[in-house]
Amino acid sequence: MPTPIEYADASPQVRAVYDDIKTSRNVPDVNNFWKYLANDPATLKRTWESIKEVMSPGALDPFTKELVYLAVSVTNGCGYCTASHSAAARKAGMTDAMFGELMAVTGMANETNRLANGYRVPVDPAFQK
Amino acid sequence: MPTPIEYADASPQVRAVYDDIKTSRNVPDVNNFWKYLANDPATLKRTWESIKEVMSPGALDPFTKELVYLAVSVTNGCGYCTASHSAAARKAGMTDAMFGELMAVTGMANETNRLANGYRVPVDPAFQK
Amino acid sequence: MPTPIEYADASPQVRAVYDDIKTSRNVPDVNNFWKYLANDPATLKRTWESIKEVMSPGALDPFTKELVYLAVSVTNGCGYCTASHSAAARKAGMTDAMFGELMAVTGMANETNRLANGYRVPVDPAFQK
Amino acid sequence: MPTPIEYADASPQVRAVYDDIKTSRNVPDVNNFWKYLANDPATLKRTWESIKEVMSPGALDPFTKELVYLAVSVTNGCGYCTASHSAAARKAGMTDAMFGELMAVTGMANETNRLANGYRVPVDPAFQK
Amino acid sequence: MPTPIEYADASPQVRAVYDDIKTSRNVPDVNNFWKYLANDPATLKRTWESIKEVMSPGALDPFTKELVYLAVSVTNGCGYCTASHSAAARKAGMTDAMFGELMAVTGMANETNRLANGYRVPVDPAFQK
Amino acid sequence: MPTPIEYADASPQVRAVYDDIKTSRNVPDVNNFWKYLANDPATLKRTWESIKEVMSPGALDPFTKELVYLAVSVTNGCGYCTASHSAAARKAGMTDAMFGELMAVTGMANETNRLANGYRVPVDPAFQK
Repeated sequence: MPTPIEYADASPQVRAVYDDIKTSRNVPDVNNFWKYLANDPATLKRTWESIKEVMSPGALDPFTKELVYLAVSVTNGCGYCTASHSAAARKAGMTDAMFGELMAVTGMANETNRLANGYRVPVDPAFQK
Repeated sequence: MPTPIEYADASPQVRAVYDDIKTSRNVPDVNNFWKYLANDPATLKRTWESIKEVMSPGALDPFTKELVYLAVSVTNGCGYCTASHSAAARKAGMTDAMFGELMAVTGMANETNRLANGYRVPVDPAFQK
Repeated sequence: MPTPIEYADASPQVRAVYDDIKTSRNVPDVNNFWKYLANDPATLKRTWESIKEVMSPGALDPFTKELVYLAVSVTNGCGYCTASHSAAARKAGMTDAMFGELMAVTGMANETNRLANGYRVPVDPAFQK
Repeated sequence: MPTPIEYADASPQVRAVYDDIKTSRNVPDVNNFWKYLANDPATLKRTWESIKEVMSPGALDPFTKELVYLAVSVTNGCGYCTASHSAAARKAGMTDAMFGELMAVTGMANETNRLANGYRVPVDPAFQK
Repeated sequence: MPTPIEYADASPQVRAVYDDIKTSRNVPDVNNFWKYLANDPATLKRTWESIKEVMSPGALDPFTKELVYLAVSVTNGCGYCTASHSAAARKAGMTDAMFGELMAVTGMANETNRLANGYRVPVDPAFQK
Repeated sequence: MPTPIEYADASPQVRAVYDDIKTSRNVPDVNNFWKYLANDPATLKRTWESIKEVMSPGALDPFTKELVYLAVSVTNGCGYCTASHSAAARKAGMTDAMFGELMAVTGMANETNRLANGYRVPVDPAFQK
């Protein structure tokens, strides 16, 4: 199975990505996700650059984006992503109360998505605009 | 297949829920989701009361909650929910730029969730705390 | 895109499956699912034989099995399957009240599945036995 | 990460929910799901009350509801939920043979849902009624 | 709701991406996916460049990649993606027989994924290496 | 919870399936998936025969089918299946580079599936044919 690539064993191309992650996030080491992705340097580089672009401040602030990322990860049942994005959201300021409400919204959306599926609700004309 | 229950044909119990939705949201009529759910008055009432509680202002503001709801609905591929929560988010202030970024984050989360699954990345000890 | 194979245009192998479906279900014609699957006669035959075996009376009665089939289809957001298995369940005796409760359970399961994911709840030792 | 709230450390509001769960289910302690949800007392209370209402006897018996809950949890790949609802279904009378058939139906539904998606099967007019 | 951006109405940045898609694929116009994504030029550009990199010949040939893309789209129930990637795979050489087998494999994987979930099968030590 | 059925403890019907798996795959023992499925001999037999038929050489070669199986398992987040089908694909010749590209395609498909959902992209007339 895939094994992590530590900085000491990484190629210059991989190290360049690691360095950028460490600088951008002000962390002493990259987390496991990147160490495993480093087995495919092209995907490592592309994914990091995409994440950096997508998660940067824009019309939405980075904190809101972290909350959305966590809600999607929980919906998909990705254990690693739920752990890592919970940590990221906490670091960005998510309190226990915020986490509780985020989970409540995520749970309700998953519930009502299925109620809409099951009742085969047609889209209201007003929502087609 | 299920058919919608219009206000004029609704029981007093269903009308009471419709009235509360219309007042709470300041809309002249409820959208199709509720008209279909009204086939099961207990689920109509429970779902509305849960939504009202979960989506109200708290540690997270209602706008952030709408964005999360939309991201989950898009992840699950619920067509009705994507349409209705896009409309709700627009009404609550979501601009085109915000929508674009929300979709970008939702897409990236769905991508990296699978990369983490596929590489079988173990949770970092720092994320276990 | 795939097109349906009507009985008149079907090969003897496909007709044999259609005949068995029509006899087993006491219907004048097979529904679209089978007409499309007939583009791959091996999958048509294997799927029908598997469905016939799995949905037959056993430790669980066929009606309970239909309800489960519908709940899974709604969870997955399969529009065709939700329509066809709603019809099958209705034919097998599902009332409006039963449908309402089935959707309520399906919705709650989808909600609490995400709450368990998000809170990263460890399995109780009692459930490991 | 979230930690469980034991009865001894719980607020009166949380204890009231725990007491109701213990009485309703005739168990000496609540399972981990509730202890984690107790970090958000409003979600704990709302979720328990919803579950109690949804899983009570109605047009469908509680045993059938437990089977549906388990099938949905397995479909979503929720490990905790699969463990807890397997235990609940066993307690409610699910035999090995019933479990085997439930999994067979759940598996077939997941398979045919994708066959219908892939062949883009249009809904039969008879299923639109 | 989002509307498509036609070439005539597109900004120079969007036109540059459209031109690259048209040249790379040798098509007279881009398909709807790109015309909608053009509402967010940054996502349009990033997504196209990622797709171009990921789908190019490498250790796996582009045809195999198209089959995988279609299988994932069918699994997720994305109607648009199933239609567009079916067309792309057909163009790249997918025959009716290949499509039938691809669907059969996709269906079986979705079935056995749930059987493994439901039986809570532990990973064999030989698969941990 | 379910327990595995070892060869020594298996019924003649189960042993016959185990023997066929061992011969077909040239392995000294069956993996855990089959040992757990053996709790339901009918499902064991049906699933094995279906897998054997579906994964055999045809219009698509068995290696391509293994890659597709893995991509679907990763998309669904099935941990057991990801481990077992990674091992199977490796055994069939999947290199590190192939694995990396397979995950890249799987990730992109999951991302663009949601972009198409979120932008509610209508199917191009050319894809309806």
